[in-house]
Amino acid sequence: MTAHFNQVHKKYPIIIGISGASASGKSLLANTIVNELGSTQVVVISEDSYYKDHSNIPYEARTTINYDHPDAIDHDLLYRHLLLLQQGKSVEVPVYNHALHIRQKETKHIGQHAVIVLEGILLFIQQSLREMMDIRIFMETSLDICLIRRLKRDVKERDRSMDSVLQQYEDTVRPMYMQFIDPSKHFAHLIVPMGGNNRIAIDMIQAKIRELLTDGHERTPSQPGALTSS
Amino acid sequence: MTAHFNQVHKKYPIIIGISGASASGKSLLANTIVNELGSTQVVVISEDSYYKDHSNIPYEARTTINYDHPDAIDHDLLYRHLLLLQQGKSVEVPVYNHALHIRQKETKHIGQHAVIVLEGILLFIQQSLREMMDIRIFMETSLDICLIRRLKRDVKERDRSMDSVLQQYEDTVRPMYMQFIDPSKHFAHLIVPMGGNNRIAIDMIQAKIRELLTDGHERTPSQPGALTSS
Repeated sequence: MTAHFNQVHKKYPIIIGISGASASGKSLLANTIVNELGSTQVVVISEDSYYKDHSNIPYEARTTINYDHPDAIDHDLLYRHLLLLQQGKSVEVPVYNHALHIRQKETKHIGQHAVIVLEGILLFIQQSLREMMDIRIFMETSLDICLIRRLKRDVKERDRSMDSVLQQYEDTVRPMYMQFIDPSKHFAHLIVPMGGNNRIAIDMIQAKIRELLTDGHERTPSQPGALTSS
Repeated sequence: MTAHFNQVHKKYPIIIGISGASASGKSLLANTIVNELGSTQVVVISEDSYYKDHSNIPYEARTTINYDHPDAIDHDLLYRHLLLLQQGKSVEVPVYNHALHIRQKETKHIGQHAVIVLEGILLFIQQSLREMMDIRIFMETSLDICLIRRLKRDVKERDRSMDSVLQQYEDTVRPMYMQFIDPSKHFAHLIVPMGGNNRIAIDMIQAKIRELLTDGHERTPSQPGALTSS
């Protein structure tokens, strides 16, 4: 299948963007889709990896940055990386250290793939980046469900206090969701309710990707199965 | 493909339900999906066909009925028809005369199909009916866009006055949407924004149907491509 794909796949990788609130199930959806497909032709890239490096300022100052604001993320670098991947080149995706708020020295090498699944909270904000995505999917998970997931993850797994999680939630997570993420839903082609375990949604997205991997994607819009971006 | 399908397709047709506001693009989405697929194995059934027959009461009385309320539709008959189709039998779908608010004498014969696409405003209200659907899709189209479509259709094509369309809209269409249709969105596995011309959504649903037609659908949930209803 790989050989066949490479034969017909001459233009660029298909880019699928999955966005939505923090802890809405984006990463679970993306990884379930890709892991179950079990194809080396499909890769997940996380917007989180592109947090700006703040190693030039003291740790104390780094902890006060609003990490839920678009300015915290180096969308220009992500955009340039996607352009390079479209040109058949490979890129070095940053590895971000969330505890220290800095980029690690090592990077993750990403070469040519047929399908790139992007996932992140602020993917649909910037027009140039948004237009790179052939399919835009938004996770519509109730905010209380997202909060439950966040509390379980941060208090139980990351050993943070409930108070600090709620403080951050009220200070930045919720306001930035209202200001930036929720309005960006209007750019989605498809909205996925019920979170990252929504079996029907996973199944349908996988069916489309399997078809792309088998057929290539250079059919014209009038033909069944063609992929067009609006 | 048909022979192959019949071989593996032993259990029942896959039922895909498409719901949402009146004039939200349900019918356009359903028919575009099915017409482009061009397979005799896929058929559209409209909830509209199951409006209750009111030939036993005078025409004047019929015009005062709330046709946007679930009670106006014979969901029990639709349910029984789907059961029969699941049992490998064929059914006679009623043909409804919207001008006279009665069922015609003729019916539409529907035999065995691999995939049935149901479309209608109140499909997700009744639990038993809802649970018949393997995939539930909700059209999330802004109500003002639906109203524009309705005005164009009813005033321009059906020769009704703008006032009467707006009157009906305020009296029944909008209140019934708020009371019944909007809450039923919570039962959807997938939400389609941007109306019935959403090319990406059409494409993805078609990809899933093509896969069902090629492979059958009796794989277990743990296998890629399996279809499970939640």
